[in-house]
Amino acid sequence: MISVDAARERILAALSPLGTETVSLAAAWQRVLAAPVTARMDKPGTDVSAMDGYAVRAADCTAAPTQLRVVGSAPAGHPFVGALAPGEAVRLFTGSVLPGGADTVVIQEDTDEGDDAVEIRIVPRTGAHIRPRAGDFAAGAILLAPPRRLTARDVGIAASAGHAWLTVRRRPRVAILATGDEIALPGDPVPAGGVVSSNSFVLDAIVRAAGGDPVTLPVAPDDPAAIGAAVGAARGADLIVTSGGASVGAHDLVRPALEPLGLSLDFWKIAMRPGKPFMFGRVGEAALIGLPGNPVSATVCAILFLVPAIERLLGLPGEAPATIRARAGGALPANDHRADHLRASLARDGEGDLVATPAARQDSSQMAILAAADALILRAPNAPAVAQGEVVDVIVLGGRDI
Amino acid sequence: MISVDAARERILAALSPLGTETVSLAAAWQRVLAAPVTARMDKPGTDVSAMDGYAVRAADCTAAPTQLRVVGSAPAGHPFVGALAPGEAVRLFTGSVLPGGADTVVIQEDTDEGDDAVEIRIVPRTGAHIRPRAGDFAAGAILLAPPRRLTARDVGIAASAGHAWLTVRRRPRVAILATGDEIALPGDPVPAGGVVSSNSFVLDAIVRAAGGDPVTLPVAPDDPAAIGAAVGAARGADLIVTSGGASVGAHDLVRPALEPLGLSLDFWKIAMRPGKPFMFGRVGEAALIGLPGNPVSATVCAILFLVPAIERLLGLPGEAPATIRARAGGALPANDHRADHLRASLARDGEGDLVATPAARQDSSQMAILAAADALILRAPNAPAVAQGEVVDVIVLGGRDI
Repeated sequence: MISVDAARERILAALSPLGTETVSLAAAWQRVLAAPVTARMDKPGTDVSAMDGYAVRAADCTAAPTQLRVVGSAPAGHPFVGALAPGEAVRLFTGSVLPGGADTVVIQEDTDEGDDAVEIRIVPRTGAHIRPRAGDFAAGAILLAPPRRLTARDVGIAASAGHAWLTVRRRPRVAILATGDEIALPGDPVPAGGVVSSNSFVLDAIVRAAGGDPVTLPVAPDDPAAIGAAVGAARGADLIVTSGGASVGAHDLVRPALEPLGLSLDFWKIAMRPGKPFMFGRVGEAALIGLPGNPVSATVCAILFLVPAIERLLGLPGEAPATIRARAGGALPANDHRADHLRASLARDGEGDLVATPAARQDSSQMAILAAADALILRAPNAPAVAQGEVVDVIVLGGRDI
Repeated sequence: MISVDAARERILAALSPLGTETVSLAAAWQRVLAAPVTARMDKPGTDVSAMDGYAVRAADCTAAPTQLRVVGSAPAGHPFVGALAPGEAVRLFTGSVLPGGADTVVIQEDTDEGDDAVEIRIVPRTGAHIRPRAGDFAAGAILLAPPRRLTARDVGIAASAGHAWLTVRRRPRVAILATGDEIALPGDPVPAGGVVSSNSFVLDAIVRAAGGDPVTLPVAPDDPAAIGAAVGAARGADLIVTSGGASVGAHDLVRPALEPLGLSLDFWKIAMRPGKPFMFGRVGEAALIGLPGNPVSATVCAILFLVPAIERLLGLPGEAPATIRARAGGALPANDHRADHLRASLARDGEGDLVATPAARQDSSQMAILAAADALILRAPNAPAVAQGEVVDVIVLGGRDI
């Protein structure tokens, strides 16, 4: 058996970032940036007022109060034409260009407005309330460096730097294949002893959440020819994800199905719970990840391995899920040699500390408990027992709506 | 001035959940559930094997080893027809239906397979390795209760409960209107003293992240007729979000523009930084949120007020952004009467504790600093000074890719 970290490293080592494409800024949110975004201009492009008030010459305001003649008003987008002469002021607003000759802004709360005149009631600090040219960023500055999944804020700064188009990684095309004679789609008749397919729906959502484009293939029966035909139909995919058919003995079914397609496949046992049987390899140009058929195991393995794999194809590092710390809501026994991922609820205790309480039942067949869980408590291989209240690491579920 | 919490409460109180629609399960991810999802069948539908092994009668295995006759093999989806007689076993796999007459599963690791026979090497516990009928959920059980933003796991459990269609809230239609003579779109010529629009792009992404459908209107110049025409064109929207035109004096521009459209509008000053001037009200059927024009203020206000407003339209509670605790990476001075939201980076210290370090510059014009920030450190009104290393509450940025 190999460790969770070793499995992820082997998957990441086998994958490379995909090519790039140009997208409109309006379509760039959540895409992964593939080229630096540099500022095309200074922002602001000139000294501007940080407040509503008056542009003045500080040399005119060495005593208070001072009367100045108002020679104009310059709302944002309508710069004052000309320059301030001694004894003059110009009405400004937040973002207004500072007129020539002015070196200071006095906020309107420190003034009294008269007819064509203003009384300055303070002695301002020279340069007050001015946002200097390039104070946010200077032309040529690298504002966003790849790789980076673009947030709303990132899209905003790319806009403000003058970019209508961005270079991003192509979305990985991920083919999803559920296998099993017992599998029916929701609403379709369920065969005797059968179950309704859930893995392909969960995987479709996880692929989208990670930034991929899912293609859900029809459910394949437990028949080598049908599995081979389904995987063959996935040609053009960057990654093929199967669920089911990865357990003991099942590779007798999958291997002959895929060998004619140029199979190079490893079967692993990963020292983890839930989930253990796992396939990884390559079919022609596509990488292949074989998840367990059990829905809880498939979901946890997708979080631990499929999301990083898609991130790697997007040029991101493909890291392990982030963890935070919480207090154990109950005593946890010493762990065996398999990394465990206990389904848990999260709440705050009286001191405001986060508490992770494991569900009473941890059977890997219980999808309802996984759906209701807030977090997975991580139990390292051979971790010692933990008393209630001790600190544990948890993966918070629900991020990216997974 | 009103507090951040009071402002959010007034917004939420003025909004009601929108109507519902039916969507395919394949389109349900991230939608907000509006009706309970109940189980249409037991899961599993019958007792099934939890492991690969053999179905036996415990009464046959009271001593070890025991030889049993293998009378069949029942892969998942292919139940054994008939019932076990004394001395008989049936080969099973994970998920296989337990044959009639059997009461126990012996895992294959505890057996030796022969020709049409199997040696059971242990004395099994009666009922071992069986997943009982309805052990995951029983027909009629409420699996998902509204309101709930559907995760990948939720979609999976709805599938496994037999649902091909779900009832969800209609997405709020959110019209986005940036105003200002100084505003240009990226790639378009920038007027003298102008800036490139970023708010409408940030808001478009935030609306999508929160679950709304954005409609970005053309930028309106600072002209009452143009603003009125733009807002009039937003009829049919559930919510209109403006940026700019909400500062001191600017309501002289907006109010006359909107009064002919059936305006009922409040102008607030919210005791917060960044952001202070704010509009809220109603134009005909649509609610209207007026954000500050400053991009940093607009983004922070959108996180604090627009996201909860959209959540409320979706039938969700519309809570304040979640906070976690971190240690202050530097000393923080006592706060004044305005709630502050310090842009900060997050890192782990040597003990693994999260540390939030405020950016050296907190000017609300600095979009580059906001884009690079990992978190906002919350400083309550009149909060006392904080020493480096003391615990502070932070809003982690980047959630939902905002």
